[in-house]
Amino acid sequence: MITNPGMSSHRRLWIALLLLSASVATAHVLDDVDIPKLGMSRPEFLLDPARAVQASVAEDFVTFFYNQTLDHFNYGPESYTAFNQRYVVNSKYWGGADSGAPIFAFFGAEAAIDGDMANVGFLTDNAAQFRALLVYIEHRFYGKSIPYGMTLKKALSDPNIRGYFSSAQALADYAEILIHLKQKLKAEHSPIIVLGGSYGGMLASWFRLKYPHVALGALASSAPILYFDDIIPQDAYYSVVAKSFLESSSSCHQTIRRSWEEIDRVASEPRGLTKLSNTFKTCSPLQSSSELKKYLRFLYAQVVQYNDPSTQPLKLMCDAVNGVPPRKGLLQKIFAGLVAINGNLTCYVNAPPSGTFAQTLLGWSWQTCTEMVIPMGITRNTMFPPKPFNLNSFSNACKSVFGVPPRPHWVTTYFGGHDIKLILHRFASNIIFSNGLQDPYSSGGVLKNISSTVVAIYTAKGSHTLDILGADKSDPDWLVEQRKTEVRIMKKWLAKYYADLHAFGN
Amino acid sequence: MITNPGMSSHRRLWIALLLLSASVATAHVLDDVDIPKLGMSRPEFLLDPARAVQASVAEDFVTFFYNQTLDHFNYGPESYTAFNQRYVVNSKYWGGADSGAPIFAFFGAEAAIDGDMANVGFLTDNAAQFRALLVYIEHRFYGKSIPYGMTLKKALSDPNIRGYFSSAQALADYAEILIHLKQKLKAEHSPIIVLGGSYGGMLASWFRLKYPHVALGALASSAPILYFDDIIPQDAYYSVVAKSFLESSSSCHQTIRRSWEEIDRVASEPRGLTKLSNTFKTCSPLQSSSELKKYLRFLYAQVVQYNDPSTQPLKLMCDAVNGVPPRKGLLQKIFAGLVAINGNLTCYVNAPPSGTFAQTLLGWSWQTCTEMVIPMGITRNTMFPPKPFNLNSFSNACKSVFGVPPRPHWVTTYFGGHDIKLILHRFASNIIFSNGLQDPYSSGGVLKNISSTVVAIYTAKGSHTLDILGADKSDPDWLVEQRKTEVRIMKKWLAKYYADLHAFGN
Repeated sequence: MITNPGMSSHRRLWIALLLLSASVATAHVLDDVDIPKLGMSRPEFLLDPARAVQASVAEDFVTFFYNQTLDHFNYGPESYTAFNQRYVVNSKYWGGADSGAPIFAFFGAEAAIDGDMANVGFLTDNAAQFRALLVYIEHRFYGKSIPYGMTLKKALSDPNIRGYFSSAQALADYAEILIHLKQKLKAEHSPIIVLGGSYGGMLASWFRLKYPHVALGALASSAPILYFDDIIPQDAYYSVVAKSFLESSSSCHQTIRRSWEEIDRVASEPRGLTKLSNTFKTCSPLQSSSELKKYLRFLYAQVVQYNDPSTQPLKLMCDAVNGVPPRKGLLQKIFAGLVAINGNLTCYVNAPPSGTFAQTLLGWSWQTCTEMVIPMGITRNTMFPPKPFNLNSFSNACKSVFGVPPRPHWVTTYFGGHDIKLILHRFASNIIFSNGLQDPYSSGGVLKNISSTVVAIYTAKGSHTLDILGADKSDPDWLVEQRKTEVRIMKKWLAKYYADLHAFGN
Repeated sequence: MITNPGMSSHRRLWIALLLLSASVATAHVLDDVDIPKLGMSRPEFLLDPARAVQASVAEDFVTFFYNQTLDHFNYGPESYTAFNQRYVVNSKYWGGADSGAPIFAFFGAEAAIDGDMANVGFLTDNAAQFRALLVYIEHRFYGKSIPYGMTLKKALSDPNIRGYFSSAQALADYAEILIHLKQKLKAEHSPIIVLGGSYGGMLASWFRLKYPHVALGALASSAPILYFDDIIPQDAYYSVVAKSFLESSSSCHQTIRRSWEEIDRVASEPRGLTKLSNTFKTCSPLQSSSELKKYLRFLYAQVVQYNDPSTQPLKLMCDAVNGVPPRKGLLQKIFAGLVAINGNLTCYVNAPPSGTFAQTLLGWSWQTCTEMVIPMGITRNTMFPPKPFNLNSFSNACKSVFGVPPRPHWVTTYFGGHDIKLILHRFASNIIFSNGLQDPYSSGGVLKNISSTVVAIYTAKGSHTLDILGADKSDPDWLVEQRKTEVRIMKKWLAKYYADLHAFGN
């Protein structure tokens, strides 16, 4: 499936698509909001070709649709409505129900599930040694799992449908499907380990907390479950971004730091926005300097977030920034960094989002506007000018776009988060919170062990959800080691489960 | 408040009210269903006068209304609607926020909260030694906590309102109010222990499982959390009833056992139903022998369920049954037992339900018809003729009364229950499942320790929710001991909490 078409141009193209659509679409929908996208999607060619080919053996992955309850929690007129929810099963490696061989369930997050079978290499890499059944479940309102077979846009415009797009409903969906699957397979005593990355990682850890009778354990990769309410400072994310740039190249960091004023200065000149639009080859004329600044802020953020050891976009960008001779001016340096990541395109900055990313960004906007309120902002002058998070303007933006106000305290009410060690030290078990400290979202992750079985496994150099991607020969030792540790811990959970089953199960 | 007006007649009157309304109303609503009422309500005079007077000191209990979210889990047009939810606070004993003194929260169940401040003597009896704040929260759709200030009947007839009457919503209500209360009191580090009896006990244990960040622990009294789905045999409840009668008096047991055929025989005679109506002094002519048999089945069930050591209704009934000379005939014996419990009334068997019980029975019918599907039946010939639980006819009855089908697997999907020791042995902590084995609902309770901190504390002679009623000088030693054990365990939870707070809290 995957050929090897000139690495560097391809790499840039994909990163470009990713970043462009992320920033532009979000800017479109919510001008006052500064929440970089989550998610584990990488440029496609970053997958190891061997593994990608293996994952693409279509007959190993069988698609099913489950007749899912629209509203698990109420008994109103629409609550009994059902919709088709997609899930995909790979039974190639499974040891079978009789042997109680485990089930690994990947929780789809804010995207169609299509790419995940290839993306989540951790599962296909390790299924054989666990003799595990692999299941990938699509999150409601994404991909082919939208009620009434609607487009997401249509579903979100219907107040009677969109309301059921929530995380608690999604978790109950996963519970129903997994219980159904075990019954169908007569695999009553096949323990389930759930797994997810980013928002999907939050779902995985919350699922273990809410549904311990369904999931034996959870691997939550890069799950910023503490980035809610007032648990951590709003600056946490962008502080990591700034620090990473500084550590990568202080001159690059300095250039970016000085660029914001320069952008504003040019913008304030006569025909300044036109000049800026020309300098940055924007796809449509800039409406304000903020539009450009927001795009750049997101670009820098994501260059750090997805700074994988195999692609090193941060170095790529800073090398380009630093490579422009001073006489060409500050903004040409910025532009060069932008091009290094995006590759040679006909235009930049504000291309409209397209394809599955458009759906992801629209759906995630709804989710952040209702419950996933990540109060992220910049209050101090670092590499970025201050841009504090303001709940009021965020609320107003959400109301004007979707007609609903956010519930900023719901996540901590339903899932907790404050005093997490105090709360969970003597409650819960079998959760791995994995992180890479290069990932700015790791600042909202669990980085300290909570107990002997609720543990934090992080690497100093890792990026966002890196550990659950597929293994590659070029992987650094620390990454290999992180994955080995995760496998070892999961084996311990299983061993205890089988011992308990023997001791006091049926 | 409580005078002492001729114990025995009063006792009978109250038991009569309780049982009459229970059986009749349920028979009304759901003819095919055999689920005896849950609940901790006892005849009022059973409260110790001293304690009752203390609890009735109105100024110690302050009533509040919280602006509660109608729909916690969705973001639809009605989800943001709020309703007034009642809760009552007693701060007389509280040690205050600065000392981190605990909060005890009683979860209202399928009844208005009004009686609970006097009923739940365990809290007022022990508040002083814990320096605890006491909070009593009314369950949505009962008492003064019905959306839009409607009557329950009106709310249940509105498909757009009644749908929000669910246990998951109720638990989220409790979470919101408790978080709100701690914020209001600046009592961030005052640990909360939740407590409830019967259905309220289920809610308490489920709350500790779902909201460990809100509740440090739960005392779940007589909570039949295993009486769902196929976890235990449907016969469990009535087997206990039959066994208790047999142990109390084998001749009484034998009389009842033989009575069912006799009722059917008389009913099949010419004008047989009129004869039966006359024999049992029914309030209105019997429509079928089933009407009488159902009433009696419920009466026997509840005589055992609420067979408190201080009142001993089982002995009262059997003494009366056995006291009738054989020449008077079998049905006069049955009737004598009925009168012994009910006292001298103008009529029996099918008086219409009244007062707050009518609300309780209507609300509980809705709850059992949606999610609290307790599959209770009789498959073997014991003291009762067989009457197996039939999900189809149950579903049809629910559909015809309320227009909605039950979700019989939802409780086990959301809360679990199967393989409970296997699931919770290494997950969860700080739950006391207390039971009295005389209580037929104990057959659906947790009677074995799940771990060192999820424990079963039961007594051989206890009745339904007996332990959380108020202490009385006449209490038998085993009851005194059970309560002491519960207090000791709760103190351990608190001690560990304060130690943890010191070690790694804020």
